Amino acid sequence: MAAAFHPMSEFADMIPPETYDRRNVPPAILTGRMNAGNVRHRLQLLNRLFSCLEGAARVHCARRGYSPVRVPNIVSTIGACENWRTLFKVDHASSYFHLLTQTGQLFLEGALTATDRVWCLTKSFRKESLEDHRHLCEFHLLEIEGAFDFEGLLEEIRGLYCALLDAVRQWEDTSTKVALGIEDAFLDHQLSRGLLQRTYTECIEALDGLRWGDDLTPELEGELLKHFGDGQTPLLVTHFPAAIKFFNMRMEDGDGRIVRSVDLLLPHSGEALGGAEREDDPARLEARLRASDMFRHHLAAGGSYNDFKPYVTLIAEGLTPRHSGCGIGMERIMQSLMRQEDIRLCSIDHLTKVLYAWDALNLGVPRKG
Amino acid sequence: MAAAFHPMSEFADMIPPETYDRRNVPPAILTGRMNAGNVRHRLQLLNRLFSCLEGAARVHCARRGYSPVRVPNIVSTIGACENWRTLFKVDHASSYFHLLTQTGQLFLEGALTATDRVWCLTKSFRKESLEDHRHLCEFHLLEIEGAFDFEGLLEEIRGLYCALLDAVRQWEDTSTKVALGIEDAFLDHQLSRGLLQRTYTECIEALDGLRWGDDLTPELEGELLKHFGDGQTPLLVTHFPAAIKFFNMRMEDGDGRIVRSVDLLLPHSGEALGGAEREDDPARLEARLRASDMFRHHLAAGGSYNDFKPYVTLIAEGLTPRHSGCGIGMERIMQSLMRQEDIRLCSIDHLTKVLYAWDALNLGVPRKG
Repeated sequence: MAAAFHPMSEFADMIPPETYDRRNVPPAILTGRMNAGNVRHRLQLLNRLFSCLEGAARVHCARRGYSPVRVPNIVSTIGACENWRTLFKVDHASSYFHLLTQTGQLFLEGALTATDRVWCLTKSFRKESLEDHRHLCEFHLLEIEGAFDFEGLLEEIRGLYCALLDAVRQWEDTSTKVALGIEDAFLDHQLSRGLLQRTYTECIEALDGLRWGDDLTPELEGELLKHFGDGQTPLLVTHFPAAIKFFNMRMEDGDGRIVRSVDLLLPHSGEALGGAEREDDPARLEARLRASDMFRHHLAAGGSYNDFKPYVTLIAEGLTPRHSGCGIGMERIMQSLMRQEDIRLCSIDHLTKVLYAWDALNLGVPRKG
Repeated sequence: MAAAFHPMSEFADMIPPETYDRRNVPPAILTGRMNAGNVRHRLQLLNRLFSCLEGAARVHCARRGYSPVRVPNIVSTIGACENWRTLFKVDHASSYFHLLTQTGQLFLEGALTATDRVWCLTKSFRKESLEDHRHLCEFHLLEIEGAFDFEGLLEEIRGLYCALLDAVRQWEDTSTKVALGIEDAFLDHQLSRGLLQRTYTECIEALDGLRWGDDLTPELEGELLKHFGDGQTPLLVTHFPAAIKFFNMRMEDGDGRIVRSVDLLLPHSGEALGGAEREDDPARLEARLRASDMFRHHLAAGGSYNDFKPYVTLIAEGLTPRHSGCGIGMERIMQSLMRQEDIRLCSIDHLTKVLYAWDALNLGVPRKG
């Protein structure tokens, strides 16, 4: 059962080295182009933008009938199975709950037993070896889940994304907008064009040298935006191969290879949203869970099928309506709005950490900006 | 430097046992008095109450000129030094940031370089061996920090606490109020009386068998509420001994033994808030940091003074105005409002986890409520 189990208590007193690997830090800071005062000022601006977006999401979700819920952050595999390669574990040796949340999705699905639309804003944690221009170890994830099918989900995504964009367009704090490099022309361009939409298969056929089943890399995402649009218009990509997606995405009727899933690709930041209709056939759900890479890893690490049973039971017992949902990376939205190539410069968490590792990074005395 | 350091990568594949210690779980659930359907229903009610309180805090803070900020949750000792006995570590062996947040306080203090009042709502993580009727491994912490002195802080606390209470009093969702056991009479009683206020020394003198310097236990907190009031009126306890409080609480002028700190004790839940004016004399700050139990533990575990330098520098360079702040445990507020003796029944996180450990707890098939 727990062959690989090892008491974490040995680590009770462990403090890692005092150094913070400089490769984590944006070049703009390492080279001194941004000093501590600049970072503090940027933090203030980013907090304002975050508040604008968070407030817009709250108002929009309330208008659309979503109830706000909260999800735990120290979880079992139920809350931490989106990407098993980047699971953070905490030193709570004897606890069933020892992983950091990656998504609130399965908890949100559970909340649909009581109400038919829910949303939450939580931290999502990923154990990246280093934070780089595309990867963060923690970010804010805005998630919605509701009793609608795939077409309904696409409509909800369009509505939510446009509500966020529109809030920034209407935002009266123009000096913060200017300081962050947010241009109304860019917002207007998107608001007037709406979101493009293509299937995964259309995307693969449009690009050279790809085979059906390949995943889309960040470079390919950029090419797709240029191929189908002008490079500055967001693109919804739908109907991905089941093999490269989460185990509970619903199969497309009549095609066992394709799931009703959607990614939203944004200019400058790439994939900012992932969503799907959820599988509601218990036998298919169990079979796909058992066949997934994630589950194979889970078994190899000493876990079992039982760890997923509370979720599978929800579906098997018909406790939830047929439903769909998605998660939006807030920092990716901010990155796209600012047309910024380095996501670390869009992350309040990242920049706060850099500021408090100033000495460990040998960046000199922090000055007031 | 890092004598006790040990590579966490050994744990890369560790999954703990499949069982969830039943001692974590409230008796009401273990005995079957609450089934899964009851828990789901309660989660819905608690989410509504949380939204009511969170919304009230947001509106109140905006009115009082506080800017909302966000703080990281995977931190260095700067964000995790409130209670070194309950530090959670994550398996990020080579990272400077490897602890889970206990408080955003030192980050909020840093944000005062840019604006003079800030607030945040974050998760606070405590590695309790078990969750019990008074202890949770994760809870929501509402924190304010601003450019005011100790008297100003007390005024802010009174205002914020009454704003939360008043929002619940005015709340129109009366069926949720009734279902959660919240009584308007209890709210009216508190709103009409306001908060009692006594010094720590007065508290020690009022109780039998205590010596100056002793900490207040939960049992003593309950006795104090009865001694100075009717047991149902909150009590602000001020001016604690420096030795039992956080290193950066400001010394009371003329008395090196006492700090300008405050705890708020609530009926039914006990200590729900801790706050203080912050030390702004760099020499005294450094001396008190070095003399603290927390720092001794930090050194023993391989840390160094440098880990606190980014914070001490803020104060030494005079980058922040003289300031004060506090943190409020949201679940303790909810517990008091519901006059509930078991905090686990007031925690969305705890009850969500129980629901998803239903099989591991051998609680039978979850039923729809």
